[in-house]
Order: sequence, then C-alpha cells, then structure tokens
Amino acid sequence: MLLRSLLFAPANRPELLAKFPGVGADAYAPDLEDGTPPAAREAARAGLAEALKGARGGRSDIKLFVRVNAIGSEDSPKDVAAAEAAGADGLVLPKAESAGDIAALGTRLPIIAGIESVRGVVEANAIAKAAGVLAVYFGAEDFAADIGGRRTKEGLEVLYARSQVVIAAKAAGVKALDQVVIDIRDDDGFRRDAEMARNLGYDGKMCLLPRQVGLAHEAFAPSATEIDRAARLIAAYEKATAEGKGTIDFEGRMVDPPILKAAQAILAAGRA
Amino acid sequence: MLLRSLLFAPANRPELLAKFPGVGADAYAPDLEDGTPPAAREAARAGLAEALKGARGGRSDIKLFVRVNAIGSEDSPKDVAAAEAAGADGLVLPKAESAGDIAALGTRLPIIAGIESVRGVVEANAIAKAAGVLAVYFGAEDFAADIGGRRTKEGLEVLYARSQVVIAAKAAGVKALDQVVIDIRDDDGFRRDAEMARNLGYDGKMCLLPRQVGLAHEAFAPSATEIDRAARLIAAYEKATAEGKGTIDFEGRMVDPPILKAAQAILAAGRA
Amino acid sequence: MLLRSLLFAPANRPELLAKFPGVGADAYAPDLEDGTPPAAREAARAGLAEALKGARGGRSDIKLFVRVNAIGSEDSPKDVAAAEAAGADGLVLPKAESAGDIAALGTRLPIIAGIESVRGVVEANAIAKAAGVLAVYFGAEDFAADIGGRRTKEGLEVLYARSQVVIAAKAAGVKALDQVVIDIRDDDGFRRDAEMARNLGYDGKMCLLPRQVGLAHEAFAPSATEIDRAARLIAAYEKATAEGKGTIDFEGRMVDPPILKAAQAILAAGRA
Repeated sequence: MLLRSLLFAPANRPELLAKFPGVGADAYAPDLEDGTPPAAREAARAGLAEALKGARGGRSDIKLFVRVNAIGSEDSPKDVAAAEAAGADGLVLPKAESAGDIAALGTRLPIIAGIESVRGVVEANAIAKAAGVLAVYFGAEDFAADIGGRRTKEGLEVLYARSQVVIAAKAAGVKALDQVVIDIRDDDGFRRDAEMARNLGYDGKMCLLPRQVGLAHEAFAPSATEIDRAARLIAAYEKATAEGKGTIDFEGRMVDPPILKAAQAILAAGRA
Repeated sequence: MLLRSLLFAPANRPELLAKFPGVGADAYAPDLEDGTPPAAREAARAGLAEALKGARGGRSDIKLFVRVNAIGSEDSPKDVAAAEAAGADGLVLPKAESAGDIAALGTRLPIIAGIESVRGVVEANAIAKAAGVLAVYFGAEDFAADIGGRRTKEGLEVLYARSQVVIAAKAAGVKALDQVVIDIRDDDGFRRDAEMARNLGYDGKMCLLPRQVGLAHEAFAPSATEIDRAARLIAAYEKATAEGKGTIDFEGRMVDPPILKAAQAILAAGRA
Repeated sequence: MLLRSLLFAPANRPELLAKFPGVGADAYAPDLEDGTPPAAREAARAGLAEALKGARGGRSDIKLFVRVNAIGSEDSPKDVAAAEAAGADGLVLPKAESAGDIAALGTRLPIIAGIESVRGVVEANAIAKAAGVLAVYFGAEDFAADIGGRRTKEGLEVLYARSQVVIAAKAAGVKALDQVVIDIRDDDGFRRDAEMARNLGYDGKMCLLPRQVGLAHEAFAPSATEIDRAARLIAAYEKATAEGKGTIDFEGRMVDPPILKAAQAILAAGRA
C-alpha cells in the first residue's frame, strides 16, 4: 500500500469528508481527536457511519483511518467502538507512548500510531514493533509542545526525534508518515519539508488540506530527471559487471551496489 | 522553580561569590571542580561555609548548588561533606555516567547532574530518572573533548547529544540546562545558542559570567511579540471552539490543540 | 594504531592492490564484497594470497583488512577462510546488524564492523562492544538505500545515524571510520565532509581512491594554526593554575579543563 499522503479532516464535518473522493489521497483520517472539539464528539460518533459513507462516495478504493482519542481519555473506547461499527479501514492512535497503548485499543483494525510526545520518542522502537501497527507518524507540533520547545521552519530542533521515528519504523518494517506543515498557504515550505522527509526515508506526509496532497505525491515520487539518471546508471553498471567490475565511475561518482540499489528503487517507485 | 540560568563561579574566589546577590540568576554554582585548581581545593573546602554566607548576602532567595568533583575522584567525598556542612541548597555533579553515580554521592540534597561524556549520553535516560535528580545539564565542551571531536558555533556536531539530553530530562520530568558559551564577549552568539536551546526544549543555560545571566533570562522568556500573538491565537481558537470547530486558520497557519497548548505555555511563561 | 584512512580496492584487481605500497594509507581493504562482482569472487578468493602479497610489496607496515561478504551470504564463510589463509591482518565485516554477527564470523582476526543499515544503527552499541571489534565504520550510502531515503551533500538526513555510530564506538572504546564520499573528483566536498567527521569525533574516513587518502590525512591532523593556538593556550593555562585560577580568559574565550584537554589532544595528534 502506498502511503504518500494521509489527509486529515474533522469527523464532525460530514461536508468536508464528502470531498474525499475527489482528492486522490492514499489514505484519509476522519478526526475525532484534535479536529473535533470535545463538546462535538458525542454527535460526531453518532453520525460517523453516515459520514464515512459520504466520505467513500460509493467507491471501494477510499481508505479511511479514523483518528480516535488517546489511550486513557474518556473518549477513547467510545471512539474505537464507533469507528469499528462505522466500518473504518483502520484507526489512527494519537500520542502513543508504549506498546501497551497499542494493545489497549483492543481492536483488530490496522493502526497508524502517532509518536508525538517525549515519551513516545523514547519508546519509538517498541511502538513501531507492536502487533497491529501498519505505520507510525511523527507529530512535530505535539512533540514540541510536550518538550516545551519551539518549532522553526528549518526544523533542527526536531531532527533527532524525526530521525528516531523513521528509523524505528523501518527497523520494524512499517511505513512512516512525516509531520504536518501548518503554514497552509506556503507551498514552497511544504515542498522543502517533504523533500527533507523523503531524504530521511519517510514514505509520505500527513496533510491538512487537499492542496497538500498533490504536493506530497509530487515530493514522494521520483522526478523525470531522477528516473532518467537512474536508468542510465543501471545500464552503465550492468555493462561494467559483465566486464568483471564491481564499481564504476558514473558521471563523477563512484557507483557500487548500494548506489545501484537506490537507483533501482527510484525506477520501481517511478513505475508505481 | 525557574531555572533559566545557573551561574558558575570558582569556589576558591569568595570575592566573586560575594557578587551573586546583585546578579539575579535563578541559581548559582560555586565550583569546586573545574573552576578551582586541584591545589586550591582543600583551602576552598575549609572556607566554603564562609564563602557561601558571603554568596547569600543575608538573602534567603539565593539558591546555591555547589559543584563537587566527579565520582571516583579523591576530592568527591570531601566536597560533598563540605557542601552539606556549609549549608548548600544542592549539589552539581559533573560527568555523571550512570544512575549509580547519583546514588554514590550519598546525599539528601537535590542534584543537578552533568551529562558531558560519551558514556553519560548513552546513559542519559537512567541518569535523569535517578532519585534525587532535580535537573540535568549538557556539557558540550567536555563531551567534545571526550569523544575526540571539535566544537563549532553552529553546533551540528553535538546536536544528537544535546537533543538526547533534553529528551531524557523531559521523559524523566526534570529540568534541563543547556551548554555554556565560552565566547564570553559574543553576546549575539550567546543569544543564537540560547534560542536554539529554547527551541529544543531546554529550560535555561549554564552561565560563565553575570552578563550571560541577563541574556539567558531574555532568551528563555517569551518576547512581547510572542505573548501578543499567543493571546490573539487563544482568543481566536476559543471563538472557533464555541462554534464547533476543532481547528482554525489563524494568520495562514492551521491551529489545533498542540499549537494552542504551545500558545498557552507562552502566556504562562510571560506571567512568571 | 592511527586510522585516519582505510582505502578500499576490488580484491579481484591485483594490479590495483599492487599500488598500495605507494599510497601511505593507515590501512587498506581489499574488497570481496561490493567491490568484486559475485561472478568474480571465486577467482578472487583463489588468487587472494598472491594479491595480498602484491599489496604488501614486501613491506611489514601495510595493514590489510579484507572486506568479506555479509553474514548469511554464501560467500561469507569462504571469504573468511580465504582471508585467514592469505594472511590478512584483519577483516572488514559489512552490514553488521548484531553482536551475534561478529561472533558468527568465527575468526581470531581483528574486525572493522560496518554499520550501514537501519537495524545496524539500532544495534550500534552492541556491535561496537562485541569481542574482536577494533573499529566500526558508518556506511551512509547503504544506510540511505536501506531506509529508503536520499543522500545530500549537507547530510542532515544521516546526522542522527552518523552521530549514533561514533558515540557507540567511543562508548565501547574502539575507533570510528566515517562514510565514503562518492563524488570522487570533488576535493572540496571531501574536505567539508571530513571536517564534519572530525568535529563529530570520527578518527578517519573510508577512501575510494588514493587521492582521498591524502585529503583524509590532512583533515584528521591538526593544522599548524590549531597546533600553535593549542600551545599558547596550554602555556597561558599553566601560568594561571600556578596563580590559583581554574579558569582563564584566553583570547575572548573562557578556558577551563575540558578546553585544556582538547588543546592537549591537538598537540598530541600534531606530534603523532
């Protein structure tokens, strides 16, 4: 499953969820947590089945991961029951802080676990390896609020945590989704942030608006230039191997199997 | 307890300690370790009670954390005994490398533990959680000397260790003090370094001179612009919540509970 | 043993190995893994003793660490046997992912262990501490390919992993070798990368070509300016200590024992 984008929208706003079929995101997160104010959650749960039906628009390829409230909250068990009853494809669990939090959900649905607190980062390896986890996400804004720090555009202040989360995900063999960009009209800022995420090994980004979904898909797919260069590199390498060489000088760079592997991954992603 | 600044001064220089009452630091560290040469330590311990009395200047709000020598040194037990007898408010333990080092002090005084070696960074979580620890500090110069590296102004070479230490502190629920700035006449350099420390979640900085204390207090308190923006953001968010919205578009940024929480923290800090 | 440079060359190219005596690297790695294509490995092993003899050129100061294939591959036990029989001084083990991988080599030769996968980074502390390990290296290209990321010249995407590896090495008391630079004609790029490696605490770099060896030796040795400054700093500090001071103001910087220790290390390295 591709996971270049996970688009969030408030679960109490069926009119926004109804726009999902036109967006083309890889997955969607109707949000019962931060997106829905506490006072509106009871009604949102009551209307969830109807809202998810609208979000699918009759299509079978719309993946809906309902974000429930964190373990320990009063809303949590009610959210899980409502999401299961409404036929969600999976759950998004915010503020996961241990493998036990994942088990405590008591669901058979696949889970995208949010690592977005100091404790969550310390426990990242255990969370990513927990049974049922399909992917993790790094929530930079929550992490910064929890540690008492401040966010910058450059993001050096979260580089350790952001790196730790993607490493934990890949060590566990699950996907990794990168932080949101809250500057919702700054497309260049989104592109730069997504570029860094892809460099780090993230598979995609959480998106706050449909316009960010397109930007994410561009950023997490190889460009035509990258694909062309990868194809030429592979051809040159295969020729050299046939001549008994394990490394070649390709356009000024020494190419050996790891570089070849990266080029092959670019071609495979370009075909996807 | 606020800990925006911890001002160091040699414990063998009573004339320098006597200036503490005029400085206004959140805490002070009369230094029996690096600040006092080995040959002068015996005399410094003998004069410590008198020196601390001078450092307080008759005031009850001066917090004195005596820096003792590292566990394993000959000075260590003598320093602890002298600090306790002299009525110190706490101890600063340099080069802590395990939870056992904290226990080995054998004191009931609260401890600020220095994480400033390779092993200390590896054991940061255990050190921060040890009983009696009130705060930890990251010692970049010692860490760089221990790992055989070099310090730069930008500091990317210690970003991992500096991040690890503040994460360990906050996971353990204790305060975190950032590295010293040894360029003692470079105020802009100090401001930039403190800015980064605050972004990372540090509560304050170790200071080498009284002039650095004022710079630290500025850096670790929200500016008037930050406070004003936080107040407007909170007002806008409360209005939206009353209308059933969990997220708002505030001056081009998508605001949800973590952003709100950060704004509330700024207002609270501004009032402190 | 100095380890500022480890020069790789394909083990199936005796004419390249024969150039080693003229290069002056601190150690050399005839490469049976990525440097030798799978189809050429049998022959390379058969000719290894002769090739290593040529690589030594009759000299006793040429250190040859044969890179064998990763644990679990068919080549691995054959490579180890061939390297031992050919009189190698040690082995380079790529893609080490656990302490068990080191033991699985079943050799008495000293080992340079490659940490170059997501799992390897997670297990870095255990790998560096394993019996028989003399040094570790960080393989950024393999790591990036494994995590599904991309390399940049600035390298922020691997800063966490690169920092973790050198910290694990120094905590275990072994040497650390930094990533290769594949842009083989970009000397300035190599210098910048080596500069950062030295700042981080690395002892040297893996080299792909003889020309990189000279650049590495320059980067990992203190410059004349550094040595001169260190000597002046030490003299000033010793004078101050004699006067009962533990810290001094040296050219605008506050100097205390860790800074002194760094200066002493520069002088010692300058003499080496």
